[in-house]
Amino acid sequence: MIRALLFDVQGTATDFHSTVCDEATRVSAGRHPGAGWPELVRRWRAGYFAALRAPRGGGWVSVHSVYRRALDAALDDCGITGLSGADRDELTLAWRRLRPWPDVVPGLTRLKGAYTLATLSNADVSAVVDISKRAGLPWDAIFAAEMAGVFKPDAAAYRMAATYLGLRPAEIMMVASHKYDLRAAGGLGFATAFVARPLEFGAGGEADVAYSDEFDVNASDFLDLAAQLGC
Amino acid sequence: MIRALLFDVQGTATDFHSTVCDEATRVSAGRHPGAGWPELVRRWRAGYFAALRAPRGGGWVSVHSVYRRALDAALDDCGITGLSGADRDELTLAWRRLRPWPDVVPGLTRLKGAYTLATLSNADVSAVVDISKRAGLPWDAIFAAEMAGVFKPDAAAYRMAATYLGLRPAEIMMVASHKYDLRAAGGLGFATAFVARPLEFGAGGEADVAYSDEFDVNASDFLDLAAQLGC
Repeated sequence: MIRALLFDVQGTATDFHSTVCDEATRVSAGRHPGAGWPELVRRWRAGYFAALRAPRGGGWVSVHSVYRRALDAALDDCGITGLSGADRDELTLAWRRLRPWPDVVPGLTRLKGAYTLATLSNADVSAVVDISKRAGLPWDAIFAAEMAGVFKPDAAAYRMAATYLGLRPAEIMMVASHKYDLRAAGGLGFATAFVARPLEFGAGGEADVAYSDEFDVNASDFLDLAAQLGC
Repeated sequence: MIRALLFDVQGTATDFHSTVCDEATRVSAGRHPGAGWPELVRRWRAGYFAALRAPRGGGWVSVHSVYRRALDAALDDCGITGLSGADRDELTLAWRRLRPWPDVVPGLTRLKGAYTLATLSNADVSAVVDISKRAGLPWDAIFAAEMAGVFKPDAAAYRMAATYLGLRPAEIMMVASHKYDLRAAGGLGFATAFVARPLEFGAGGEADVAYSDEFDVNASDFLDLAAQLGC
């Protein structure tokens, strides 16, 4: 008996690729007309993932600072010069303004009548709050890795959310477009729903959208998820 | 420049006294027609406060368990017998079903366009989620003492909320009907708004509703607060 749904945000609920590409175009103000922003954003996101997986010393690092540092490396890799420090700071704020996929608000609205809806994001709490307020995402609660002091897929992040919801893992379904996230949750006893996001990395990207029997639900978007859950 | 409002929940946003009295009447099913539920709820709440202030050993205790234990003592004090363990468990759940004061939903709705709205409650996260979902309280985020591991008025609870909001204390206004809560927040540099709740302890209770210049705003309810903040 599922009582709550936990949602990944960056990629699953929001289209970071188009949002950040658009922001790069805006911030660069046409000074880099030939710049390959789609590839820049893919490398930027990959650099973020690598940083999250790297061993860290004590203390929490904000995801904003992780993105800021990863941007410099990604720009170098792409041979894009001429963005000032202020430009780079501004561009990094794009990750706090991610737009939802078009099915997200109507899908969540349908699901909200039957389930408690919460985020479980690796983004900073303040970023998830900003994204959600701007987009009108109707969460009942916002949980983020920052509250556990460790990033997904560390078990402590999922357990934190279950504790705060006051529910057993079997009463909670993790919803994500990333299989590593679902596998970690599933291994702890959470139900799992895979949502395919073929454009997660843009038109030229390679998103893993293959449905798999290892998940309890495979859905094409949040409206399909709502339909499969009887909402 | 205030960017976010932090709200106390039990008493400030919700009318615990009438909710819990009604639940006591329901759970006791007329078996205690002469029972003084208004006084029972006042003693129960006082017992909860005393427990929160008592020195604790290591580890977090859920507020649900604090209320459950305080109920036994309050019933004894009031000479009310005959409620079974199951009745007492059921009655304790009343604190997860608190009804908002009538100005709260319209007031928050007006404030939400201009400010980030979050809770900062000593209640369990899951209780605040349940109360808010049931009542349709339009928070942008739910923060609770449980996330800091200490209860208000410990400074770490307020600092946790500021960190998660990504804001400085001066950018945040604490809203409460309890002066100890506002004084703690104000001492850390938060702006403060006192909201008078004359019926917090019922018709026979003695709530402190005196406005004071020590707070940045004194308001009669959330609609008055919205008006004073220009919403």
